[in-house]
Amino acid sequence: MIQTQKKIAIIGSGLVGSLLAIYLKKYGHDITVFDRRPDIRNVEFSGRSINLAMSNRGWNALHEVGIEEEIKKIAIPLDKRAMHVVGQPEYYQKYGKEGEAIWSISRGVLNRKMIDLAEEAGVVFKFEEKVWDVDLPEGKLFTGETEKGEWQEYQYDLIFGCDGAFSRVRHKMQRRSRFDYSQDFIDVGYKELTIAANEDGTHKLDRHSFHIWPRGKFMLIAMPNLDGSFTCTLFMPFEGEVSFENIKTNDDAKTFFTTYFPNVMQDLDNLMQEFFKNPTSAMVTMKCFPWTYWDKVALIGDSAHAIVPFYGQGMNAGFEDIFVLDSLIKEHNDDWHAIFEAYEKARKPNADAIAELSYRNFMEMSSKTADPKFLLQKKIEKHFAAQYPDKWVPVYSRVTFSDRPYAEALAEGDAQEAIMKEVMKLPNIEEKWNSQEVENLILSLL
Amino acid sequence: MIQTQKKIAIIGSGLVGSLLAIYLKKYGHDITVFDRRPDIRNVEFSGRSINLAMSNRGWNALHEVGIEEEIKKIAIPLDKRAMHVVGQPEYYQKYGKEGEAIWSISRGVLNRKMIDLAEEAGVVFKFEEKVWDVDLPEGKLFTGETEKGEWQEYQYDLIFGCDGAFSRVRHKMQRRSRFDYSQDFIDVGYKELTIAANEDGTHKLDRHSFHIWPRGKFMLIAMPNLDGSFTCTLFMPFEGEVSFENIKTNDDAKTFFTTYFPNVMQDLDNLMQEFFKNPTSAMVTMKCFPWTYWDKVALIGDSAHAIVPFYGQGMNAGFEDIFVLDSLIKEHNDDWHAIFEAYEKARKPNADAIAELSYRNFMEMSSKTADPKFLLQKKIEKHFAAQYPDKWVPVYSRVTFSDRPYAEALAEGDAQEAIMKEVMKLPNIEEKWNSQEVENLILSLL
Repeated sequence: MIQTQKKIAIIGSGLVGSLLAIYLKKYGHDITVFDRRPDIRNVEFSGRSINLAMSNRGWNALHEVGIEEEIKKIAIPLDKRAMHVVGQPEYYQKYGKEGEAIWSISRGVLNRKMIDLAEEAGVVFKFEEKVWDVDLPEGKLFTGETEKGEWQEYQYDLIFGCDGAFSRVRHKMQRRSRFDYSQDFIDVGYKELTIAANEDGTHKLDRHSFHIWPRGKFMLIAMPNLDGSFTCTLFMPFEGEVSFENIKTNDDAKTFFTTYFPNVMQDLDNLMQEFFKNPTSAMVTMKCFPWTYWDKVALIGDSAHAIVPFYGQGMNAGFEDIFVLDSLIKEHNDDWHAIFEAYEKARKPNADAIAELSYRNFMEMSSKTADPKFLLQKKIEKHFAAQYPDKWVPVYSRVTFSDRPYAEALAEGDAQEAIMKEVMKLPNIEEKWNSQEVENLILSLL
Repeated sequence: MIQTQKKIAIIGSGLVGSLLAIYLKKYGHDITVFDRRPDIRNVEFSGRSINLAMSNRGWNALHEVGIEEEIKKIAIPLDKRAMHVVGQPEYYQKYGKEGEAIWSISRGVLNRKMIDLAEEAGVVFKFEEKVWDVDLPEGKLFTGETEKGEWQEYQYDLIFGCDGAFSRVRHKMQRRSRFDYSQDFIDVGYKELTIAANEDGTHKLDRHSFHIWPRGKFMLIAMPNLDGSFTCTLFMPFEGEVSFENIKTNDDAKTFFTTYFPNVMQDLDNLMQEFFKNPTSAMVTMKCFPWTYWDKVALIGDSAHAIVPFYGQGMNAGFEDIFVLDSLIKEHNDDWHAIFEAYEKARKPNADAIAELSYRNFMEMSSKTADPKFLLQKKIEKHFAAQYPDKWVPVYSRVTFSDRPYAEALAEGDAQEAIMKEVMKLPNIEEKWNSQEVENLILSLL
């Protein structure tokens, strides 16, 4: 394999930017990572992040550069959901087969570790250096204190935009003709909250579970941290009857938490304080194309395909971008034009697929979980999958515990949905949902 | 009606910007129109515009401010399509009922006239003054020679973004959270060409027709100008077998025109020269929401809803925006918050509808016109509409010759399509397309 040493700039020192730096450094390239924010290792976390769920695709990408084990040390495996449903005792739903789990990691903890590893490998980080403009054909970057102030100019062979959903690099590409772009916000926002550790440092809830308090239009989730705390995320409409807009006072918040989340009450004071301290954030699906400019510039991760977080795949999809890009580097050597063309062609349909799957999960959670027909359908699918695990792999498992393309998972899911549509048409399906007739019908349609 | 005098900036001196200026000036507001380009009255036209087809909605908006007759003087009514189909003599298709016509106007001629009229009414125009930034909550504009140079600051009570599909004002709004946005380019580009007048100043083709040379994946259209010339537009894929990319030399162009457009051959030299002189332009559907910011800033026309030009409604939709905004000013008086809220709520569904209709027309033209089933369906619809003109109003007429909402036209069109789907399922429909049976079926489904 031939790789001529290149001078490469990576914009963004987040998870994707720092992992890409580690990958590219292996080829001996000269790598500088720019970030407009301060070094995350020296500041408090933002109070606006959802804990990450690392699954197969993420681990594969870390394994390839030999840092999987290092990262596993700061992650906690979750092999099940813990459901906190009103009027029922807590119950559990296994995620997959024996040994299958998603891993809870704090975004901040992971990001700090990844930057450490990249720096050890010889990557240069320039924090608090703001990129204001990019000259795409020339591979030039312009940085400075303010947009209107003095700028410093840099020239690179390659520039990677890993600067997230609101990417400046993409912003520049967007002004070109024939660049397709969309950003769609959902009407639900989220807020980070915390359940503190017990005094002895242990977790207040089961530490190997992804905790969910589904409440119809809104929900609370909690994922464990190593220090005994849980990072919680409250998802709720911005406006409407129960909404962020309608919780204005301490009394409103107290009523809200005591009414809907009685079993997290022990941390009420903390929750209420954070509710008003932490920002309410919006969620967006962002799509664009092309992702590259000549053999000069490429978008990777959220900058190319931001998705809503309801499948837990945002980081995994970004890491898989890097894994695929790397395999194409090995295939095309020094031909960055061919690498970039193959990269965007390979990844775009899969990015669109995981965007669609994530959005559907949001719609399911916000509108279908109260629908008895929908719940019955899920029960039948689960029943059948238990009998025929090889014939009916749930979409969740295809997405989370496999490295087959997202687009394939989406297509298989649609095929399953078409079958279930027929099944649900059966008269009296409510009574015979676990009958031989239903089983035979599914088998005949597969 | 109460209207307190406001200091208003309009960004963009195009058709929508200048008509809006005329409307708002009637209320006694202090109006300044900014444009980054030079005064169109002092420069040659761009060579990249498609002639405009003014129809009902456009005329209504002009009538309201008393300039309809003035503008009719520079327009030519077209009551029919002239079809130039390979292997057939030229034939005509009437657009609507007696007296119904669309009106051909040169964009440049119309724009010059509108600016004249606005200036006469007391509107101030600032040409070649480039807006680089907008402070939305403060209503401030920043202009200057270059983006990095010295800026001048202005403060206004209201700012209207009439700066087209690539609007700077919208660009600023887009950086906000919860702003939905999409831009989708089609794979077909267009190029302006001209058929010159005869030496005696008369038109070379019928002057009261919209001329079309349909050729499957590409087509040429021609619309008459007052000076005897025709402004032509060549629509063709950017890439592919017959494409802009594949016409590189004079010989390529000569072969192209002589092969596909034998009856425009008399102007071949001119067409070939323009083919290489004029730019190839892209076409985009742009959607966004919200269109307004508080009671300070509003987008109108293409800046809020750019559409592909295949329904000839871009300008008409923009003018209708103004007409509706004006009716809301009359309703809500000084309450600009209420005006803007009602404006975007009223117009957004209609903008989406005409975007969809325009895109469908493009798809029809580029992929369905060679489909015998599709042509048969159109023949049946036409036949039925001729028998029952009150029961079957074609979508084209609803869009072009009525002022009912676009969204209604789209919905009625979908309902007609559903009926025709049933009709086309009839066995041997090819033979009995004009039978009583078909007529009865349609009547029963209406």
